[in-house]
Amino acid sequence: MELYRLTAMQALHNIRANELTVEDYAKSLLKRIQERDSAVKAWAYLDPVQVLNEARRLDQIPQSQRGPLHGVPVGVKDVIYTKGMPTQHNSSLYEGSAPQVDAASVLILRNAGALILGKTTTTEFSATTEGPKSRNPHDQSRTPGGSSSGSSAAVADFQVPVSLGTQTGGSTIRPGSFNGVWALKPTWNAISREGQKICSLNFDTLGLFARSVEDLGLLANVFGLEDDEAPPTRFLMKGAKFAVCRTPIWEKAGPGTRAALEKAVALLKVHGAQVDEVDLGSDFRNLPQWHATVQATDGHVSFLPEYRRPKGKENLGPLVVEQVENTGRYTHADQLRALDGMAALRPKIDTIAGRYAAILTPSVVDEAPVGFHTGSYVFNNIWTALHVPVINVPGFRGKHGLPIGLSLIAPRYHDQWLLSVAKEVGRIFESEGGWKSKL
Amino acid sequence: MELYRLTAMQALHNIRANELTVEDYAKSLLKRIQERDSAVKAWAYLDPVQVLNEARRLDQIPQSQRGPLHGVPVGVKDVIYTKGMPTQHNSSLYEGSAPQVDAASVLILRNAGALILGKTTTTEFSATTEGPKSRNPHDQSRTPGGSSSGSSAAVADFQVPVSLGTQTGGSTIRPGSFNGVWALKPTWNAISREGQKICSLNFDTLGLFARSVEDLGLLANVFGLEDDEAPPTRFLMKGAKFAVCRTPIWEKAGPGTRAALEKAVALLKVHGAQVDEVDLGSDFRNLPQWHATVQATDGHVSFLPEYRRPKGKENLGPLVVEQVENTGRYTHADQLRALDGMAALRPKIDTIAGRYAAILTPSVVDEAPVGFHTGSYVFNNIWTALHVPVINVPGFRGKHGLPIGLSLIAPRYHDQWLLSVAKEVGRIFESEGGWKSKL
Repeated sequence: MELYRLTAMQALHNIRANELTVEDYAKSLLKRIQERDSAVKAWAYLDPVQVLNEARRLDQIPQSQRGPLHGVPVGVKDVIYTKGMPTQHNSSLYEGSAPQVDAASVLILRNAGALILGKTTTTEFSATTEGPKSRNPHDQSRTPGGSSSGSSAAVADFQVPVSLGTQTGGSTIRPGSFNGVWALKPTWNAISREGQKICSLNFDTLGLFARSVEDLGLLANVFGLEDDEAPPTRFLMKGAKFAVCRTPIWEKAGPGTRAALEKAVALLKVHGAQVDEVDLGSDFRNLPQWHATVQATDGHVSFLPEYRRPKGKENLGPLVVEQVENTGRYTHADQLRALDGMAALRPKIDTIAGRYAAILTPSVVDEAPVGFHTGSYVFNNIWTALHVPVINVPGFRGKHGLPIGLSLIAPRYHDQWLLSVAKEVGRIFESEGGWKSKL
Repeated sequence: MELYRLTAMQALHNIRANELTVEDYAKSLLKRIQERDSAVKAWAYLDPVQVLNEARRLDQIPQSQRGPLHGVPVGVKDVIYTKGMPTQHNSSLYEGSAPQVDAASVLILRNAGALILGKTTTTEFSATTEGPKSRNPHDQSRTPGGSSSGSSAAVADFQVPVSLGTQTGGSTIRPGSFNGVWALKPTWNAISREGQKICSLNFDTLGLFARSVEDLGLLANVFGLEDDEAPPTRFLMKGAKFAVCRTPIWEKAGPGTRAALEKAVALLKVHGAQVDEVDLGSDFRNLPQWHATVQATDGHVSFLPEYRRPKGKENLGPLVVEQVENTGRYTHADQLRALDGMAALRPKIDTIAGRYAAILTPSVVDEAPVGFHTGSYVFNNIWTALHVPVINVPGFRGKHGLPIGLSLIAPRYHDQWLLSVAKEVGRIFESEGGWKSKL
């Protein structure tokens, strides 16, 4: 197997066993990127010389002083600060900008021994819906999704084993599904968002991408995600009770997602689980509107500084300008109704989700569409608003052969529990769901 | 009058009338700082050459291209990023650190023409209770309060007309009271906190200091604070209805605060207002504990990256280490009870406060104590948790002749209303409350 195909866990094992140097591993990834970059265009910044210097530095560190991610290359979405690399937010206002400070997430990764490979593409400030230059590695006529476009596409394309994204609406789970990779949006504020450009303070969450659930778990551990009770070593599918939630906007689901959900329910049952339909009830019907309200009113505050810069407005995309200018005419009364309404639903979803191993729900409307609009987030934003952890489990395929994932949801601060459930669910979906990456 | 004594509004007027250059104004402030710095020690970083260069640059800008704060010097708390100056958080881990990016608040100030004068002292990461080197300008044996120690002391001592602080517990309102200056903690997230080091994501709020309510209003306008309904041009005291709230921890109020509150109530009545006692009821009794829980659990996440740095733990103060190590043994269940409990009280306080012109409540336990512990935040953290705007109105004095202020509270997103009420209240408290600065 080519080195670039290793998962983070496999690479770690080989590095620890002195069978692999960080430099050789990095070289293999850089070669893969060189071969594939013109097709996938996942990187906003990548300096091979810098990467190899850092790889060699890591190789010099004695085994006894190595961290839990020693030598693991990570792609970092270009809205997250990285010392020694620019952070440009896909905005001409930040061209060449390089704050000499690491985001909290990057600092944790570095101190764990990770190799920061480069910056991955994003939509403008993670706030807009028109994609960056990146392509879906499975079909270059299609979007990889967004706004964490490069992070998801690079992991799917074996250019890096794991990466950091962000989610404000559906920017981690949706590209996870579109690219057929694992993605975790942890509980809101369970990982520090310091140094991650604010889009919506109430929603923004660091997101994680990997090609295996074990790699997601590795990152979750390094980031200090902990439940009150440690999950079982192995979650037992037989006798487990799942909920399937079609959500109040089920009519928007396309045939690919409908088929995936039916197949998933059947597979869980075949493997001994019980699956109940759960209707969240009328309380939750306001969530899509509330999410839109808070995203807009938060964006108004977040992007005012850029708008006020000289030629600021001309250098901002229309969606950002609309938020600053409040073209939606949201009042603070609307905003507070939405904020307080969502807050009141959070303990309710915890109670509902707590009755099940997990809630199974769509990740996307359907497979990645043709073109470079990042796609709809209707199946993601309600969960983002609720602050609950969400994992995209890949495994299904759409009409055109592209991947479709499904979301698993747990109560807030049950991230480790969710990973443990997802591991067993993923084993089934990945082997029997019908999708295999051809990359 | 010496130039350094000008308020921001006065200086703006003189600069606009071509009666004052930014350079001359800056020189006067720098001279004041030179004379007083050994006594007050308000600055973490200040480079007179850099300041004068910037002042001269501002003087070159034609009148027609000047912003609404043209030439107004601002002190910036040293947990807020400033391009071209270090940001060191009063932490040895960040000695010499200089992220080359402006915080959102600083970007807005710069684009409005403000002169960033320098960085003001803070407790470690705004998170601890032992003061930095700064002294109360009214009595150098006493604390200026904290964590926005330098920002409040410098404004009180006529070293800068306005400044930026932050509040997570009581870090703006308390030093406002201790130094006898005006202070505004706006509605949470009404001003972007981008580039302001995260202490508690759920509480941290940018704070503003000034020596007049008009200057606070000036900053509030530049930062885009807007209510749904514009407040009246002049709030009428006669016939207005105020609430006085002694809070569930009234027994902690010292004689200075008790006397100030009684006098304030009497003054409001003399001037034609009605003052009702309001008891928030038993729902609100959990707030102090909930605030403590969320501050600790948020701090656990916020400071993990620093703790993980090489020699991180040794370079962090005990209060920060305790948060990271969760010595309070808070569970996520505790955390969620606190988060959800506070969220449920926010619309309730809006309703209660909405019945009155404002709620009048203590800012501090008493005048600034001897020593350099930053003082108690018991009268501040409940309001911080509720996300409501708070203004410290100076005007009263304690047993030792130091200033005591009182807080006015309004519903969320009624910041401009609150400023309009505070203007009339302040006129009375400042002229009849009994305290006058001798500086």
